Amino acid sequence: MKQEKLYWPPGVTVDAVIFTIEDGVLKVLLIKRTNEPFLGSWALPGGFLLKNETLERASRRILKEKAGVANIYFEQLYTFDNPARDPRGHVISATYMALVPRGDVKFGAGELQSPSFFSVNKPPALAFDHRTIVNYAVKRLRAKLEYTNVAYSLLPKEFSLLDLQNAYEAILDKKLDKRNFRKKFDFLGLIRPTTKMQRGSRQRPARLYRFKSRTVEELKKFF
Amino acid sequence: MKQEKLYWPPGVTVDAVIFTIEDGVLKVLLIKRTNEPFLGSWALPGGFLLKNETLERASRRILKEKAGVANIYFEQLYTFDNPARDPRGHVISATYMALVPRGDVKFGAGELQSPSFFSVNKPPALAFDHRTIVNYAVKRLRAKLEYTNVAYSLLPKEFSLLDLQNAYEAILDKKLDKRNFRKKFDFLGLIRPTTKMQRGSRQRPARLYRFKSRTVEELKKFF
Repeated sequence: MKQEKLYWPPGVTVDAVIFTIEDGVLKVLLIKRTNEPFLGSWALPGGFLLKNETLERASRRILKEKAGVANIYFEQLYTFDNPARDPRGHVISATYMALVPRGDVKFGAGELQSPSFFSVNKPPALAFDHRTIVNYAVKRLRAKLEYTNVAYSLLPKEFSLLDLQNAYEAILDKKLDKRNFRKKFDFLGLIRPTTKMQRGSRQRPARLYRFKSRTVEELKKFF
Repeated sequence: MKQEKLYWPPGVTVDAVIFTIEDGVLKVLLIKRTNEPFLGSWALPGGFLLKNETLERASRRILKEKAGVANIYFEQLYTFDNPARDPRGHVISATYMALVPRGDVKFGAGELQSPSFFSVNKPPALAFDHRTIVNYAVKRLRAKLEYTNVAYSLLPKEFSLLDLQNAYEAILDKKLDKRNFRKKFDFLGLIRPTTKMQRGSRQRPARLYRFKSRTVEELKKFF
């Protein structure tokens, strides 16, 4: 492809924001950089787009290469474009977000870059504008709890209302009133009861629920 | 910036999706291309990102150059990345969306490319993947009516409930029940009555309302 000189092509990267809940806390997956710039810093798993690769495929490839994680369902988050965000020059980064149950993440083999989960509230210093990206992703995720079923991807197929409330509390980083939480979920109509009960807890058995849909859907409640 | 050969930099463009309501119909701004590829086709106003330019600034610049339209508030929509979307080679496009009252759009002077508004339901054949982009934007806009105050940007500062319902009906492309519409807006709590009445209509005067906020805000209703 020929471009006029004026149209200097910027670099194009992808960065993956992988959230999970661990010990009741919302965490994000970081890797330790093994190249300049920011050698040795923690960063989101990311890298350059290859020729004829889609951005999502690039995100999957890089996540596999740097963190050994496969089979993640991604959605596009935002494209970060501050021309000063990368010391190497003008590089824009398309970011992808995923929510995964902690048990589903196995750090595979290969030349991995120390993949680890960190609390979104106290991450280490991050390379590039990655702190901005993480903050943006947390804000989007919290907003999406209001009008989508996105929490399904952090929960097992069947869960109690207490499990659900725990997930919401971890993501929102606040305590919710149990009765109000249940009333609101009734209104939202995103889940349905199963005939099964949760066993093995010291409390009395709790009804198990499922999300009506296990693909991300937006609330269609009003118009 | 040096990149390894492997990292062939793709071209980066922006495309602007400008919506308005005219004659009760949701319309999108198109221009007629004056260059190959797709010479003479209708297309979204778009073009290549310049060095050290943000994507949003590029959208504003191109909208001004090709459609003579200035002073638009944009939000980022999505980055389209099918490697086959541009016959010139691998070009990704970051898209920006805006909603403007028809009266605010003045096609200014300059070498404009026949800027015109077309119904989103029957646009002409479009260049590149622009039909996909328009369809995606319409879907996003309809979804956002459910949980944001985004409609404020299509309405004058003060409006009647009938004006508001007309805007919703134009965007959703369906008739809404008047009583339900009002009940739902009460629940959403996005608008507040003023002390003024609408004059000059043949019907009895109607109360004028305002949006509580005139920046895009998401519903925080549940958690």
